[in-house]
Amino acid sequence: MAQPVVEFWYEFASTYSYPAAMRISRLAEDAGIEVRWRPFMLGPIFAAKGLNDSPFNVDPVKGRYMWRDIGRICAKEDIPLKLPPFSFVQNSLKAARIALAGETAHWLPEFSRAVYRANFAEQKDISDDAVLVDILARLDVDPATTMAAANTPENKAKLKTQNEEAMRREIFGAPFFFAGNEPFWGNDRLEDALAWAAK
Amino acid sequence: MAQPVVEFWYEFASTYSYPAAMRISRLAEDAGIEVRWRPFMLGPIFAAKGLNDSPFNVDPVKGRYMWRDIGRICAKEDIPLKLPPFSFVQNSLKAARIALAGETAHWLPEFSRAVYRANFAEQKDISDDAVLVDILARLDVDPATTMAAANTPENKAKLKTQNEEAMRREIFGAPFFFAGNEPFWGNDRLEDALAWAAK
Repeated sequence: MAQPVVEFWYEFASTYSYPAAMRISRLAEDAGIEVRWRPFMLGPIFAAKGLNDSPFNVDPVKGRYMWRDIGRICAKEDIPLKLPPFSFVQNSLKAARIALAGETAHWLPEFSRAVYRANFAEQKDISDDAVLVDILARLDVDPATTMAAANTPENKAKLKTQNEEAMRREIFGAPFFFAGNEPFWGNDRLEDALAWAAK
Repeated sequence: MAQPVVEFWYEFASTYSYPAAMRISRLAEDAGIEVRWRPFMLGPIFAAKGLNDSPFNVDPVKGRYMWRDIGRICAKEDIPLKLPPFSFVQNSLKAARIALAGETAHWLPEFSRAVYRANFAEQKDISDDAVLVDILARLDVDPATTMAAANTPENKAKLKTQNEEAMRREIFGAPFFFAGNEPFWGNDRLEDALAWAAK
């Protein structure tokens, strides 16, 4: 029988995607489930609703709660959390293009976790080429080839297609998981998604 | 030492408040925590943001997901779920006034659970006096006295004050819990709120 699969849709600027990205490989391995990492962007989905910023910035009350909640979650999971003072949300376009260019590469999970750490623990600018190049180099991935592959018209179009698939499948936030067609939204549904896939 | 307390802020029209209401007494008792039941209304809080309907109706994509998610939660917890065909959201004003009039009464938790069952399992109209009278009568609470107490100008004003407190304390959804001043939003944070209070 084929190994069950969970799709993990994640956005590099999304706070709740961060603990999900740090937890999913270990939990999925324990459950015997394969993770399909699917980077995408929430911006176009929010923009389609007329939102031009994170809902956590648009609604400061909800935003203040989110920071408290994500702080508790990271503390509980022993995940470092130290935000860049310059921006929430960060521009995740370049990182998403690199991740998508590497969607079948062995380094995708580790690259993705490193981008999350850069954003949410190391106070780095993930839209800065130097930051992304450094992450790739530390993973022994050739930065020049990879950055070039990320920036081809084909790969840019592929990210648009990925975002369109997200919208078509009614993804409205991140992280988002699918076990088959069963949808699960949020870091706190990760265990449920894995359990569903294992059924 | 005084028994730790969790405040449980709930709205009778709120889907996620339903499993929280059905679960909290048992979980709190197991944890040795006292629950303070605090009925309130989300309508005025949404209205202050310019929303005149549930966010789950305003955004049908999010709404469809919510119904699937709440269905899974209720199935997992063995909580019946059968929606009234006539309305989501129901008008919860009368039920909230009765609950508030009974805020220190022994029957408040059982009354509240019965209203949730009427709304989310028995397809009843919780804005119908007959439905509320029937619930009270089955709890051996005198309906005439209680309905009268619910409808005094003082009690109506008290519900407004309760809603103002909710807004001042930055409650933006339901269910909402406080362990001291630590805020927790959502049925899926109930266990965390209890654990925080027990610390």
